[in-house]
Amino acid sequence: MNKIKAAIVGASGYTGAELVRLLINHPHVDIAAMTADRKAGMRMADVFPHLGGLELPDLIKMDEVDWSHIDVCFCCLPHGTTQQFIASLPQNVRIVDLSADFRLKDIEEYAKWYGDEHRAPELQKEAVYGLSELKRDEIAKARLVANPGCYPTSAQLPLIPLLKEGKISTDGIIIDSKSGTTGAGRAPKEGTLFCEVSDAINAYGVGTHRHGPEIEQGLSEAAGKDVIVSFTPHLMPMNRGILSTIYVSLEKGASVDDLRSTLDQSYANDPFVRVVEEGNSPATRHVRGSNYCLIGVFADRAPGRAIIVCVEDNVVKGASGQAVQNMNIMFGFDEISGLTQQPMFP
Amino acid sequence: MNKIKAAIVGASGYTGAELVRLLINHPHVDIAAMTADRKAGMRMADVFPHLGGLELPDLIKMDEVDWSHIDVCFCCLPHGTTQQFIASLPQNVRIVDLSADFRLKDIEEYAKWYGDEHRAPELQKEAVYGLSELKRDEIAKARLVANPGCYPTSAQLPLIPLLKEGKISTDGIIIDSKSGTTGAGRAPKEGTLFCEVSDAINAYGVGTHRHGPEIEQGLSEAAGKDVIVSFTPHLMPMNRGILSTIYVSLEKGASVDDLRSTLDQSYANDPFVRVVEEGNSPATRHVRGSNYCLIGVFADRAPGRAIIVCVEDNVVKGASGQAVQNMNIMFGFDEISGLTQQPMFP
Amino acid sequence: MNKIKAAIVGASGYTGAELVRLLINHPHVDIAAMTADRKAGMRMADVFPHLGGLELPDLIKMDEVDWSHIDVCFCCLPHGTTQQFIASLPQNVRIVDLSADFRLKDIEEYAKWYGDEHRAPELQKEAVYGLSELKRDEIAKARLVANPGCYPTSAQLPLIPLLKEGKISTDGIIIDSKSGTTGAGRAPKEGTLFCEVSDAINAYGVGTHRHGPEIEQGLSEAAGKDVIVSFTPHLMPMNRGILSTIYVSLEKGASVDDLRSTLDQSYANDPFVRVVEEGNSPATRHVRGSNYCLIGVFADRAPGRAIIVCVEDNVVKGASGQAVQNMNIMFGFDEISGLTQQPMFP
Amino acid sequence: MNKIKAAIVGASGYTGAELVRLLINHPHVDIAAMTADRKAGMRMADVFPHLGGLELPDLIKMDEVDWSHIDVCFCCLPHGTTQQFIASLPQNVRIVDLSADFRLKDIEEYAKWYGDEHRAPELQKEAVYGLSELKRDEIAKARLVANPGCYPTSAQLPLIPLLKEGKISTDGIIIDSKSGTTGAGRAPKEGTLFCEVSDAINAYGVGTHRHGPEIEQGLSEAAGKDVIVSFTPHLMPMNRGILSTIYVSLEKGASVDDLRSTLDQSYANDPFVRVVEEGNSPATRHVRGSNYCLIGVFADRAPGRAIIVCVEDNVVKGASGQAVQNMNIMFGFDEISGLTQQPMFP
Repeated sequence: MNKIKAAIVGASGYTGAELVRLLINHPHVDIAAMTADRKAGMRMADVFPHLGGLELPDLIKMDEVDWSHIDVCFCCLPHGTTQQFIASLPQNVRIVDLSADFRLKDIEEYAKWYGDEHRAPELQKEAVYGLSELKRDEIAKARLVANPGCYPTSAQLPLIPLLKEGKISTDGIIIDSKSGTTGAGRAPKEGTLFCEVSDAINAYGVGTHRHGPEIEQGLSEAAGKDVIVSFTPHLMPMNRGILSTIYVSLEKGASVDDLRSTLDQSYANDPFVRVVEEGNSPATRHVRGSNYCLIGVFADRAPGRAIIVCVEDNVVKGASGQAVQNMNIMFGFDEISGLTQQPMFP
Repeated sequence: MNKIKAAIVGASGYTGAELVRLLINHPHVDIAAMTADRKAGMRMADVFPHLGGLELPDLIKMDEVDWSHIDVCFCCLPHGTTQQFIASLPQNVRIVDLSADFRLKDIEEYAKWYGDEHRAPELQKEAVYGLSELKRDEIAKARLVANPGCYPTSAQLPLIPLLKEGKISTDGIIIDSKSGTTGAGRAPKEGTLFCEVSDAINAYGVGTHRHGPEIEQGLSEAAGKDVIVSFTPHLMPMNRGILSTIYVSLEKGASVDDLRSTLDQSYANDPFVRVVEEGNSPATRHVRGSNYCLIGVFADRAPGRAIIVCVEDNVVKGASGQAVQNMNIMFGFDEISGLTQQPMFP
Repeated sequence: MNKIKAAIVGASGYTGAELVRLLINHPHVDIAAMTADRKAGMRMADVFPHLGGLELPDLIKMDEVDWSHIDVCFCCLPHGTTQQFIASLPQNVRIVDLSADFRLKDIEEYAKWYGDEHRAPELQKEAVYGLSELKRDEIAKARLVANPGCYPTSAQLPLIPLLKEGKISTDGIIIDSKSGTTGAGRAPKEGTLFCEVSDAINAYGVGTHRHGPEIEQGLSEAAGKDVIVSFTPHLMPMNRGILSTIYVSLEKGASVDDLRSTLDQSYANDPFVRVVEEGNSPATRHVRGSNYCLIGVFADRAPGRAIIVCVEDNVVKGASGQAVQNMNIMFGFDEISGLTQQPMFP
Repeated sequence: MNKIKAAIVGASGYTGAELVRLLINHPHVDIAAMTADRKAGMRMADVFPHLGGLELPDLIKMDEVDWSHIDVCFCCLPHGTTQQFIASLPQNVRIVDLSADFRLKDIEEYAKWYGDEHRAPELQKEAVYGLSELKRDEIAKARLVANPGCYPTSAQLPLIPLLKEGKISTDGIIIDSKSGTTGAGRAPKEGTLFCEVSDAINAYGVGTHRHGPEIEQGLSEAAGKDVIVSFTPHLMPMNRGILSTIYVSLEKGASVDDLRSTLDQSYANDPFVRVVEEGNSPATRHVRGSNYCLIGVFADRAPGRAIIVCVEDNVVKGASGQAVQNMNIMFGFDEISGLTQQPMFP
């Protein structure tokens, strides 16, 4: 099979570097172009010395890419700058967008949470939300896939099947998420300095984080009615990983075992999502560096309630790995191509 | 003022070492004896080299202590071994017990959660639960104070005033706690090795942790009726600190501002508990090494709900610091004596 | 090509798990047996949950392995227990031994540093020291390869070519090494608990570490005369990685540029060893999870002296990765087979 | 005793915050003014929430301070900006300068290493190098004390007595130092982000770090002749702490025991410097948060050589703690005033 040609736009951030790590071993993809406007002209190895052993194209500006022979564009631009860029791409290029710009279906929700009018509403309608396991058919046909946020992936993978099957209540869902610091990006900020993050934890965006509406969009679609969740992200001293602890009420007649078996069946044929055995507690170290998502289901001490623990690597399944998985689906490759690295522990 | 004489029983663990760190600068206390049965005969500086600059008594066995001139005993023995030891102490010795043995008032609850009959039920009746700010009068008169658990301290300090004042519902209280690894103690275990804990997080004791009933005991007393909570502790790569994220429903007529002002007023005169200003998010690094407890109150995105974030240093306010605070109350010392160290950041 | 069959003996430690991570994607190897005497009967996924997504044989006892159809044995037993086991293996099995038992050529040196007589001196003579890049021809023909220690790999790769070419003095070589905590293994010990290691560093085995004579053996062979080094290992809060800072005196006529070019030429055709460009400083994060070794060469402020910085991942190039590389050489596979994972950063 | 009034200039960095932590419990000092030009008007608690429990003056601009009633100024300005500011202070103000501006006696060395002409050469002559234990008499009389650098403190405290007594050679001294990340300051930079520092180590400024000449100045003075050292600093994932591993050659007739006893005697009456017992290895966790400096002395495996390990907390003994110690000496206070906090472990 001829290899397809991929461009990585905004390659100088952590998700860009991670795409390189994954794609470089992908059997069907060549990295044909990488852009980073402020670092144009530099070698990727100068920006990311851990990639110094690879043959890679140098970083160029976005407008220097010859899109005529690019098959897929991974777009890692900041939120807000993405819409016009994607609108400018020729039709031959299929896109996996890692920004938040095409995730929210409701343009007004977008404007409310991201502070600006959406500048490509037609594209917005066309975009497919790329939660790989649950949107496979739509993704396969899509030209533009909106890659899900890191927190929403960890919340929706366990909750959507349970809501679809009516096993849990739509009321009072609590999602308490703990994230590694890669999620904050590579731009220098006081709050993500080593000395501020290490040996500490704090909540942020309490009640106001933009991933709240993204989660609710997916859960509401699954439940067939509006779902409002409580969602609190936390920043902790960990490079990679998200652990979401999710508190739910069982619907009448449903048991904790039902939750586990519903999830087991939903993901029985999925290579990356796994429900761990009863009594086991998934940890982020079990998925570090891999595209896996592990789900644990526990009875709560409060009757009629259950606790679900979901872990992923936020840079892989929560970003670049799911992006590659979506590309695999879009181009008809084996879904695990380029994603066979096992977790790195310790 | 003459100094009182303190004994630290079970001094070879982290809470024992922390008592030394705090008491060594206490104006009214001399450390007169320290025990550690398996390390008897050793110098404390050999067990804890960071204390090498201090004049301290050598470690001896419990039965080598001359209790006749000891005024206060800090008991840091493992759960279960404490009851008979404390029962054997002469009446002149007042006790702050850092184990869980005298925390649960209900002997049957104790047996259920700790696996053995309680062997000192009379003492159990006499023991005062040492949540310093909320039990000051009882503590002042007590001979035996049961020092609260680390998680229960972080949950009860914010919740008890709100339940007492009827500001929040007794239903559906969720306590999601993240703890530093000191909480697991110094005994070598695979699960607390550096390589297992670092760069990772996991939940443990989900739905079954022994601090659940301890929290419920305090909340039920405050509410005047049985309260059942969801409580999930997490182990994370941090030496010290607990952050509890608490999800509550407002009672009718109560607002998020009411929660903040209720807590503000409750702790207005307390040197160690502080409600942070609106919009600020308390972090464990803000209290590291100190006896402070910080509380943040946030509106939830779900209407009628609020999120409370509470941080403490689990080794200080969650253990040895609160123990010293309780001793100060018991002996009529200034409550901040020995506890004036400010947080260490970074 | 038919796949060869590999056994991993002593698979329940970190190096065993890492062999699985690497071999599972190796195109020419099947993992046919894994042993762990105390954990026999368990699934690998129970011992290492991060491997839960793989089809693997269960752990068995060493004497339960049917060696008749095993081609290669990776031996990860503790030092001292390895000799008799390897002596008992049938001749059809080729061995990569990750212990120290066959590294020192001089039996008396072994006895002196490891505290016991060597129990398989004939095998000792036969064993080839598996520093892949520098012993390729001997490794290819060997039945028993002694995989180098983690520190010795980081010291010998830069120093041996320089000594061979007479560019540096044999006197006063100083090797100051900093290691991640995986090097201390998975057996629970107080000294490797999270709270003891995190936010700290200490030297250990100062002047007495067993890797000293191993380093000297290699350097002496290269120099053609006895070399004595100063070597200090340090334990630091890092999962993986060794950084060795090496201080050397230039031989007359040699310049710092000569050192760099000598190393550049020595490793010009080696896929895993790379001399970084002048002015760049290799960091352990540049090789995390990969089989790379990076070397930086710097002029010292003291005239006539140079400083060399060498980094590797101690679990990969310093242990399991080099073991796989040696197996590749022994069986005539492409040397990078199973080792194409790029470094994981962050 | 009346309290003296202290001003902290440049209080918004880590050393400024640490001065507050120490001085707030100092029996003889009031913090009367704190400046931070870019954060003037803010409360210190907004810049450093861990200080939120204290009564402190708000941050103001440097030119808003009324110097007429200030007794001592702690100057924490960046290198280069300090000279003119200090030259402008009235004579009633005594100064402890934590910058590097007055450390190098030789104005040309300063210009060479810091890139600019010195703008206050007269003050430079007057300034006393504040290595507390070794310059006590001069410090007591000084108006301007140049507080030593963090690395130079850890190198000079062990080496100066040995050079003075002629126990070690002036040739081939190697200082390999590992530092916590506070040393890099609080200004956001890519290189000190959590994800770049954690789980990693790298050398920096190899052969070119500015603390090299500062160390050599002190050692040359002690030896009575020019000393050139090899010095390599490393950045590692630790908030606080420096560990310097120092390699030396014994002078003829000197033994490793001589080194230990020389150091023991030199510091016999010093409360903060301690030579640990033979066989013990000092770790940074043994001094965390305290003003202690611990020194270990080891025989090297290379005959005639020794290895010295020195640890300190870079923010305390390496910066703000030594600054307070110097102020104590200058004003005739007990040298340990404000510095009685014991190390915080874990």
